[in-house]
Amino acid sequence: MASAPADPASTYDFDPADPVFVAHEGGKLGVVARTPLRDSSDLSVIYTPGVAQVCRAIAADATLSMRYTSRSNTVAVVSDGTAVLGLGNIGPEAAMPVMEGKAVLFKHFADVDAVPVCMNSGTVEELVDAIARIAPTYGGINLEDISAPRCFEIERKLQERLNIPVFHDDQHGTAVVAYAALINAAKVTGQELKKLRVVVGGAGAAGVAITDILRRSGIPDVVVCDTRGVVEPYRTDLKDHKPRLAMSTNPRGVRGTLGDALRDANVYIGVSGGTVPEEFIATMAPGPIIFALANPDPEVHPDIAHKYASVVATGRSDFPNQINNVLAFPGIFRGALDSGAPAITEWMKIAAAQAIAGLVENPTADKIVPSPFDERVAPAVAAAVAAHA
Amino acid sequence: MASAPADPASTYDFDPADPVFVAHEGGKLGVVARTPLRDSSDLSVIYTPGVAQVCRAIAADATLSMRYTSRSNTVAVVSDGTAVLGLGNIGPEAAMPVMEGKAVLFKHFADVDAVPVCMNSGTVEELVDAIARIAPTYGGINLEDISAPRCFEIERKLQERLNIPVFHDDQHGTAVVAYAALINAAKVTGQELKKLRVVVGGAGAAGVAITDILRRSGIPDVVVCDTRGVVEPYRTDLKDHKPRLAMSTNPRGVRGTLGDALRDANVYIGVSGGTVPEEFIATMAPGPIIFALANPDPEVHPDIAHKYASVVATGRSDFPNQINNVLAFPGIFRGALDSGAPAITEWMKIAAAQAIAGLVENPTADKIVPSPFDERVAPAVAAAVAAHA
Repeated sequence: MASAPADPASTYDFDPADPVFVAHEGGKLGVVARTPLRDSSDLSVIYTPGVAQVCRAIAADATLSMRYTSRSNTVAVVSDGTAVLGLGNIGPEAAMPVMEGKAVLFKHFADVDAVPVCMNSGTVEELVDAIARIAPTYGGINLEDISAPRCFEIERKLQERLNIPVFHDDQHGTAVVAYAALINAAKVTGQELKKLRVVVGGAGAAGVAITDILRRSGIPDVVVCDTRGVVEPYRTDLKDHKPRLAMSTNPRGVRGTLGDALRDANVYIGVSGGTVPEEFIATMAPGPIIFALANPDPEVHPDIAHKYASVVATGRSDFPNQINNVLAFPGIFRGALDSGAPAITEWMKIAAAQAIAGLVENPTADKIVPSPFDERVAPAVAAAVAAHA
Repeated sequence: MASAPADPASTYDFDPADPVFVAHEGGKLGVVARTPLRDSSDLSVIYTPGVAQVCRAIAADATLSMRYTSRSNTVAVVSDGTAVLGLGNIGPEAAMPVMEGKAVLFKHFADVDAVPVCMNSGTVEELVDAIARIAPTYGGINLEDISAPRCFEIERKLQERLNIPVFHDDQHGTAVVAYAALINAAKVTGQELKKLRVVVGGAGAAGVAITDILRRSGIPDVVVCDTRGVVEPYRTDLKDHKPRLAMSTNPRGVRGTLGDALRDANVYIGVSGGTVPEEFIATMAPGPIIFALANPDPEVHPDIAHKYASVVATGRSDFPNQINNVLAFPGIFRGALDSGAPAITEWMKIAAAQAIAGLVENPTADKIVPSPFDERVAPAVAAAVAAHA
């Protein structure tokens, strides 16, 4: 849920008495021992000489590391700090509070032991090598806040090298929850999902992943726009992942601006930041579905969106229908760890979205996704993911 | 405290009902949140949007990462699994139980949040690059069970690149505790430390570090032996770190075997594994000090050592005078983290050893070091280290 990068220094605002800073004093995470250490007898079990038995067993059969080490329940939350929230490239130290927050959510919602790994940035190869090198420590890798288009290649190459799940949450977490929300929004408007004309505003991490999950789940008419307009094959300025996007979307061959794309569209999903002019929204098909997910400033303010839309969602907690990744990632990793899945497939993501959507029994315009604090969510997502492992 | 590597597969002994395996089921470590997460108000403090304030502050002043993230209390316990206990090169997965055990000890004895990082091995440069890349996550790096001579270069290069402490425990933890024990052993025998003739058996990680700390603390007459005998400048087979050792030790120019070195020596410190023949021990100066630290089989069995020695120590918990690294590393990192030390200097190590020795008020032949469970140890070591920061 990106927004325009700000110069971190220009928005530097440090007041140690501010409750947010007080809450962060000393950090948000700690380590606990799960085994007792009362005397030298315990010491000889959990450390030398007893521990050597366990080491030998794992040396002979590496799969036992998932049974006899914390690896089985540990996910690394890995970032190089190049695309942190809407703040842009602020570096690994400054990314830590987000990764720690994520780890707190992993623990709270799904009892996953997540540990931040904030790394100095580098080339795709350097980052893949570094993460693959430390992977024997973890049961899964949650990539976070890594800039596009590098994030696509890093995730793909890493998953090719590892037999544990690799999941870039800015892509897939957002995509899963946005798709879950769309399932229920279509119920509210009484439309068939596969007949919707969808415009995705933003061709970065979230935009690409949302486009992928919509198309894989059987929605053919998806048009993606970047800051220069519709991503389509006649454009000569497309780089990196965008030529593929152009070839695999936009079946009606729309060209031009976001305004051109939105004309008669049923759904707008904004993950780009910036502002969509009201006159564009006015040209959409009647009673559209508008997800304006940029934080803190939605691409379409809910007050304006509601003048036209049947259903409105944002990334913010102070409006109804918050599209929040926390509905997805804890349960997805819980399910993947529990089932020993070597990767998180597209089908697992779709199943996760369906599970999230299914928890809202009677969707209404103001209730298309569960609350982040709905305790049924993570177990339902985990079960759906594990069932597809 | 090395012993001869065994073929891990040949000693593979996996019985899930064994209490050691039962204790390891699911691993020994977990993560806890240190901040409450009760409702969306808490969520907006520890995660978006509130967390962005903290990110911005750290982006503008990276030193704030030590105040507002868990980094301030987190140490990475890093191994590539190439020299695990006496088991040799068993790989990163099989090293995990030791690193987790170490993390449990860090937490228990010094409230340090330690997290294992087990990595696939590689060249010195590859390992240094990988560890340096993830270093922004941690307040210190404890290197563990990395084979010699690579461990020396890895530690040195890493410390040159980082401004947080890097500490190879197999070297310095052992050296600090062995030196502490020697201080008190010399009190028991009534000898002056700086006049002792010391033989160090083993020129690996522990042997080199013990030699360094003894010489830096003012004991000139140290002779080091490897498997081929005395490490001295006329030897033509010395490689890696050994030429430096040969030039900086052995002031009397002893040549020949371990037997030649032990003749008239006051102290033998074994960190090599193997067995020292009783007839060598018999030629030592009267009432020598014998530290036979190989685990599980001391180089000189205590029953034989006691026939000659005034003071005997081993690495084992079932004999008096256990030379156990746990007396050192928790307090050393506690002191380094508390004082914000960018490195752990030789003077900090010597101060740590003196602090450990000082806790035994009246050393006797059977009591030259405190118990690992003596709760005064880590605070005393931490204070001594911090005072030298």
